[in-house]
Amino acid sequence: MIVIARYDAAVIGSGPAGLEAAINLKIRQKNFLLFGSENLSSKLEKAPKIDNYLGFPDITGMALKDQFLAHLENMDISISIEQVTSLFSMGDYFALATNKNTYEATAVIIASGVVSSAPFPGEERLLGRGVGYCATCDAPLYRGKTVAIVGYGNEAAREANFVSELAAKVYYIPAAKHTVELDPKVEVISAKVEGIQGDVSVSALKLSNRTLEADGVFILRESISPTTLAPGIAMREGYIEVDHNMQTSIPGCFAAGDCTGKPHQYMRAAGQGQTAALNAVNYIDILKKKNK
Amino acid sequence: MIVIARYDAAVIGSGPAGLEAAINLKIRQKNFLLFGSENLSSKLEKAPKIDNYLGFPDITGMALKDQFLAHLENMDISISIEQVTSLFSMGDYFALATNKNTYEATAVIIASGVVSSAPFPGEERLLGRGVGYCATCDAPLYRGKTVAIVGYGNEAAREANFVSELAAKVYYIPAAKHTVELDPKVEVISAKVEGIQGDVSVSALKLSNRTLEADGVFILRESISPTTLAPGIAMREGYIEVDHNMQTSIPGCFAAGDCTGKPHQYMRAAGQGQTAALNAVNYIDILKKKNK
Repeated sequence: MIVIARYDAAVIGSGPAGLEAAINLKIRQKNFLLFGSENLSSKLEKAPKIDNYLGFPDITGMALKDQFLAHLENMDISISIEQVTSLFSMGDYFALATNKNTYEATAVIIASGVVSSAPFPGEERLLGRGVGYCATCDAPLYRGKTVAIVGYGNEAAREANFVSELAAKVYYIPAAKHTVELDPKVEVISAKVEGIQGDVSVSALKLSNRTLEADGVFILRESISPTTLAPGIAMREGYIEVDHNMQTSIPGCFAAGDCTGKPHQYMRAAGQGQTAALNAVNYIDILKKKNK
Repeated sequence: MIVIARYDAAVIGSGPAGLEAAINLKIRQKNFLLFGSENLSSKLEKAPKIDNYLGFPDITGMALKDQFLAHLENMDISISIEQVTSLFSMGDYFALATNKNTYEATAVIIASGVVSSAPFPGEERLLGRGVGYCATCDAPLYRGKTVAIVGYGNEAAREANFVSELAAKVYYIPAAKHTVELDPKVEVISAKVEGIQGDVSVSALKLSNRTLEADGVFILRESISPTTLAPGIAMREGYIEVDHNMQTSIPGCFAAGDCTGKPHQYMRAAGQGQTAALNAVNYIDILKKKNK
């Protein structure tokens, strides 16, 4: 792991909230990282028809995604294809760990969307005891062992390939429809995940058609639950609690979009991303002045 | 004044917040009125360049306005060119008065923007005692008298023409740049407004270059202050207080956009308009079920 120079801000998520936050940070000349995926948001990509994004009547999700990508390109904003797995406040900055690196940022904007599925039976109980959310981080622990990976997107498939270089045996269970380009060493199993078994630590992954003995189970969703991402962050009815400035309970940590509540809609998300970014800019500027 | 059939909702304002609210009400098949002006928002129209409306990099305000108008046309939404001057909760519905009619609506969304100028000296003290915000409403009071109209837009000029049919003398003081198509009976005076004079009631309008004796002064801004519009509505730091659902302190009355606080930005406004509309839909549906 390499610690890189400190950024003004880090934006976690490349849906409308994260993108609009990034655009505003760019205009305000902040030095920032935008973490997300190259297809921006699989929810957006799959939307057959969007009627209520003001300015684009009757557009497909795919076409709207292209408009968003064009906006990023026009402003020379790039996406870091890394999943942020944890986030800790260090006082006047944050330490962010991704599946590849560690970063530092003065302010953070969480725009990570919502975790679409409920945790699997046994998942929370065995978290950190064989259950993990970052395969590349923890892969070295499973050298020569058996690992099952429940994957929700392309990035998960990529992680599975990496794990297969170290583990003795890797199973890949695609939990959502996605293109899987896997190493031939990885065994793909199409089945429904029913739960994770184990007493002190993981012993097996129970599927609808069989039970796989495994030492570790990685669940690689496209988004991570806020309390896993930022331990101690205040929640309200299952969502990140924010004030009118999109400030969370952690100073310098803002949130925007579906992760802050309902309705889960693109325009609301983008609007909150803008509010979060402009308040993060204020936060950064005040801190810079103080530390001069 | 004619009372027209009750609408599900009324949206006050045709900036991004009001338009996005209207689009969502339309999708949810509500019967609603959208009050605003044909040029949507003079602030938007005058913006030379907008960079931070996600999906439209580097667009002029005029071009973005055209995109918004195309969206309205595509969804068959029309704008009622009337200014809402007051709004009263009648329990399970609202009575709205405009400069032309009275309407009823189950829910209301205030998206009226911000009043750009501070009140003139004497304005608040003499409100209702010669100072008014709705020339056509109160014109009959000034039959045969002298009226000064401080106008901020085309709609104000139109009102001045109407007043000139009743009043003995009408002065028109354009307070912001706009096309003025006035009746020859109206005298246009280019000057800065310095204050409104009068003891018990209005006696004169003080201008930078002269003082006009007048029985009434109408100040026709493009937007009206929330407390004038909805007496008793709770405010917070000069803005309408809203919760996360964009619900104001008056049940069934929602607010969105610049009138709820800073930052004053298009995307934030549109996002709040969406949230307000979808929560208004819930409010309307619950009320309908209850009254069945």
